[in-house]
Amino acid sequence: MLSLTAFEHVINFSEMSQKAVLVGAGNVATQLGLTMSKAGYSIGMVISKTSKSSTVLAKKLNCPHSTNIHDIPLDTDIIIIAVNDDAIATVVKKIKHKSAHVLHTSGTTEMSVLKKHFKNCGVLYPLQTFSKDIAIDLTSTPLLIEGNSKKNTAILTHFAKNISKHIIFADSKKRKEIHLAAVFACNFSNYMYSIANTILKKEKLDISILSALIEETTKKAIKGNPELQQTGPAKRNDKITLKTHINLLKKNKDYQHIYKTLSQSIEKKYKK
Amino acid sequence: MLSLTAFEHVINFSEMSQKAVLVGAGNVATQLGLTMSKAGYSIGMVISKTSKSSTVLAKKLNCPHSTNIHDIPLDTDIIIIAVNDDAIATVVKKIKHKSAHVLHTSGTTEMSVLKKHFKNCGVLYPLQTFSKDIAIDLTSTPLLIEGNSKKNTAILTHFAKNISKHIIFADSKKRKEIHLAAVFACNFSNYMYSIANTILKKEKLDISILSALIEETTKKAIKGNPELQQTGPAKRNDKITLKTHINLLKKNKDYQHIYKTLSQSIEKKYKK
Repeated sequence: MLSLTAFEHVINFSEMSQKAVLVGAGNVATQLGLTMSKAGYSIGMVISKTSKSSTVLAKKLNCPHSTNIHDIPLDTDIIIIAVNDDAIATVVKKIKHKSAHVLHTSGTTEMSVLKKHFKNCGVLYPLQTFSKDIAIDLTSTPLLIEGNSKKNTAILTHFAKNISKHIIFADSKKRKEIHLAAVFACNFSNYMYSIANTILKKEKLDISILSALIEETTKKAIKGNPELQQTGPAKRNDKITLKTHINLLKKNKDYQHIYKTLSQSIEKKYKK
Repeated sequence: MLSLTAFEHVINFSEMSQKAVLVGAGNVATQLGLTMSKAGYSIGMVISKTSKSSTVLAKKLNCPHSTNIHDIPLDTDIIIIAVNDDAIATVVKKIKHKSAHVLHTSGTTEMSVLKKHFKNCGVLYPLQTFSKDIAIDLTSTPLLIEGNSKKNTAILTHFAKNISKHIIFADSKKRKEIHLAAVFACNFSNYMYSIANTILKKEKLDISILSALIEETTKKAIKGNPELQQTGPAKRNDKITLKTHINLLKKNKDYQHIYKTLSQSIEKKYKK
């Protein structure tokens, strides 16, 4: 962890009197805004491309909102860009606040996209899955941070500590790999649950029947080594079951293709 | 739930004085044997194709063991076949105990494989993932049961209730679909954790960094509707991130292919 000692005299954005603006009003912006507000930060404005979503978040944060990025108040100290990865570069070009601290919250976008435009910048990527309507306890969410200088990293660390107990320093290369791992562990495993639910609905059941199974699977995976915990017909190379399952999926070629792809990969990995 | 009233006079294998034999000594046989033993059932023998695994389980259950299926004692009342699905048909042909209750524990194998050979038979499929060395609380594991007659289903229900609080009647067709859903929700999601762990190890990290994320993902999926909780670059159609991730996986064509297959399916499903 970097020491703040050298920078203690610096007025920095970890001081809660500083004014923050959120660019974006999606899941990440919502949860980050709510947590910052709870931690005592003052949110000066919410900017979003659609009036609908900026209005909703601004109401929650009790602050003004706009669809025009040029409306960001001149005295803004911290600008947090929490928009789709594809939109970050476009947003960055429109921000004229050269002296503000500018952060993005993307797992995969490099910090260099900011460095070209701002003197003080960094990344604050929360390693979590967010919904607009489900409040998340960010205090136990790992925050991956990177600053464009030692000083800014230290300032960012101090800021991040007001939000979470779990701060990890990760440069752009490392953060990209962690984000990729998170896509497998979160987005893709959720898609597996989604397919399971679709199959169960045909039988007038739902995913709740699998809760004990899902809880045990994740408990073992987090604690130990998921490689050693792999079970199932592909691992055992149970050919009859594999054939039966592929046949059961004949009406959904997409799910059938996924079943085959994953089973083949598992078989290959565990072949004696 | 079927009523037992009509069968109360029948001597059945839910009475704990009855003698049980386990054919198989893998994960399912181990956990079922341990739970039955704890519930007061007497395990008469463990049969397995290898002496090594039958010895290990027999020691845990304090009973004889053999690699020869013809050694099953003549006075055996319950025979539980817990072997690989592909081996069930072969095992069944070797069992000469025509009057014993014979059960298999497979999710996908139809009960008909037993009906041809035994007067009293059924299926007891525990909807859970098992390891030999991690004890499972079967009392909260759903047991899917099916008997070859009303009487045998009632007897099996009574037996199953001594093992678990969560009994579900499912015929072979329904059980197959539930097993298929379980493969997606358990085996495939574990494989996603396994891939995530491999990626993280390259960065000298491991899957524990993703615990908050994994816990939140599964909590939301079990409670709600995983279709509505989908997040990630494929859902958002974040083309730059998708391209970056595919490029990061260039050294592992297998994982790259899985990433593309799942992302394409998610994109297709959520396309506006």
